[in-house]
Amino acid sequence: MNSQTSKSIDSLYEREKKKINTQLQNLFKNREPRSLYAPASYILKNGGKRIRPMLVLFSAKSVGGSFKNVKHTALAVELLHSFSLVHDDIMDNADKRRNLLTLHKKYDLNTAILAGDSILSIAYQELLKDFNNNTKTSIEIFTKALIEICEGQSYDKDFETNKKVSIKDYKLMIQKKTAALTEMCCHLGAVLGGGSQKEIQSLKLFGRYIGFAFQIRDDLLDITADEKKFGKVMGGDLMEGKKTFLLLKALELARGNDKKLLLKLIKDNGTSNKNVLTYKEIYLRLGILELTVKEIKKYTSKALNKLNCLKGNEKEKLIWLAGYLLNRNN
Amino acid sequence: MNSQTSKSIDSLYEREKKKINTQLQNLFKNREPRSLYAPASYILKNGGKRIRPMLVLFSAKSVGGSFKNVKHTALAVELLHSFSLVHDDIMDNADKRRNLLTLHKKYDLNTAILAGDSILSIAYQELLKDFNNNTKTSIEIFTKALIEICEGQSYDKDFETNKKVSIKDYKLMIQKKTAALTEMCCHLGAVLGGGSQKEIQSLKLFGRYIGFAFQIRDDLLDITADEKKFGKVMGGDLMEGKKTFLLLKALELARGNDKKLLLKLIKDNGTSNKNVLTYKEIYLRLGILELTVKEIKKYTSKALNKLNCLKGNEKEKLIWLAGYLLNRNN
Repeated sequence: MNSQTSKSIDSLYEREKKKINTQLQNLFKNREPRSLYAPASYILKNGGKRIRPMLVLFSAKSVGGSFKNVKHTALAVELLHSFSLVHDDIMDNADKRRNLLTLHKKYDLNTAILAGDSILSIAYQELLKDFNNNTKTSIEIFTKALIEICEGQSYDKDFETNKKVSIKDYKLMIQKKTAALTEMCCHLGAVLGGGSQKEIQSLKLFGRYIGFAFQIRDDLLDITADEKKFGKVMGGDLMEGKKTFLLLKALELARGNDKKLLLKLIKDNGTSNKNVLTYKEIYLRLGILELTVKEIKKYTSKALNKLNCLKGNEKEKLIWLAGYLLNRNN
Repeated sequence: MNSQTSKSIDSLYEREKKKINTQLQNLFKNREPRSLYAPASYILKNGGKRIRPMLVLFSAKSVGGSFKNVKHTALAVELLHSFSLVHDDIMDNADKRRNLLTLHKKYDLNTAILAGDSILSIAYQELLKDFNNNTKTSIEIFTKALIEICEGQSYDKDFETNKKVSIKDYKLMIQKKTAALTEMCCHLGAVLGGGSQKEIQSLKLFGRYIGFAFQIRDDLLDITADEKKFGKVMGGDLMEGKKTFLLLKALELARGNDKKLLLKLIKDNGTSNKNVLTYKEIYLRLGILELTVKEIKKYTSKALNKLNCLKGNEKEKLIWLAGYLLNRNN
């Protein structure tokens, strides 16, 4: 992609993101009671990258549709994502997200549960607004993803106490927890944009593979990212004993004392801050970072290959988005 | 209604309830992970009366439709109800419902949040199965009720700390928290059963008024019901300082020492078990129980009046159901 194209997509992205943020705020502005909708509004001001709405918009466009066809659907997917973050943050007992207090910390547990529910209810309301003959299909796609997100989160919860998680288990978990959502975004965009069966199928898989790459990249960032930019504690996953791709891969490959230390981290459900460097050194010794990058690249190219069947230049937006998503360090 | 008719509806109700219970269990039987779906299945075994599915079935029938038209919708409304109970029980810190441990007590908080979410996701999936040209309408009706239920719960939460709740505030709260759901059931039944605009409008209001009557009756049962049958502690609402119809009406009418005691209960956010009788005596002195019964009757007859426009005998099922619902002491 030449730099001119990239620059123009960049500014398109910023423009659309701004619009989406305004529309999300407008959704909650005049509703009562404020005790419900002010917290919902707070959490949607969190400065997210709005990748998922953009996947919807760009997918629709790539099959010959327009942004207008999926205007509300784009908001619905961000609301679904936001609902799941609010409830996940409760379950993970997370204090902050993107340097802002999580909803249950800013308000309280009950408010966060209910605001999450409510954000989901508004998501369905938005989804219904992009009315055409595909409404039933779009609600089906959306609901299937919602079901999978709950299942994925349940697997993820199970992993906290399961000492024998395999890479295969991990992949099933992230397929449901992360990839189901990005798959849904592209699927909805393709359907509502009027894509052919082949285009729909390809975009669906593009979304799925991008989701895999994105989640594994997220695991990697725990070790490599700039703490301030990422808005999370460096090595936080290790401290919590989270079964990330890196940890599971390391467990597969380690021998001797390294293996012992890794098993201890699993047994203790995490480790203290001061040991993070020790584990990072094990990763380096085993070449885990390179293997993880390789895995991310594998899914990224599987994703990009799926775009080959699309005609015209509009797919460049999706290529750009994949790059944006996977080169982020924030 | 003659006793023959009543008896035959009674056995129809029992038969359909049994079917609904089996279908609800089947919904969760073969899904994975069990860590998610076993808790969902547990809470749907709680022996509820399945009033809401029955409102859907009987409403469809009363406008010339069949049970088959709304088979899945009947399950969807029970799932929506169940989702809201699971999350409400967390917020109310309730240990038991219908003499069974609530989900967050039987399992834990995180499981209950996620199982609630998941039950809602399956509700939408079921709703989509009664496919006809009205699918968009039925999802709209369902989503509107979901939004209102969240709003109603938020008002209810606000009431816990609000010392100046009026009867008007109370009515808005129960309209959203309780009546929106019964209204939705009848509305869905009428639409999917193929009712005329007039029939749909009438059944909608029948459902709403029944909901009002039902909630006020629920408030009354806190004082008058048999503890074992009702499955809740007698006077529990007083002990929690809950702003019920009875308490708010008593506050309106009381003077002197009675008023002082009532205001003290409001200020203290409840009272101890040993004072319940004192407050019951105030209610008796002020004629609150009679006034409450009068209010229930008012809404019941408003509801029943709405059935006048329906032709044929099928409306007798709804009349029977209203009676069943409002004469319950369990």
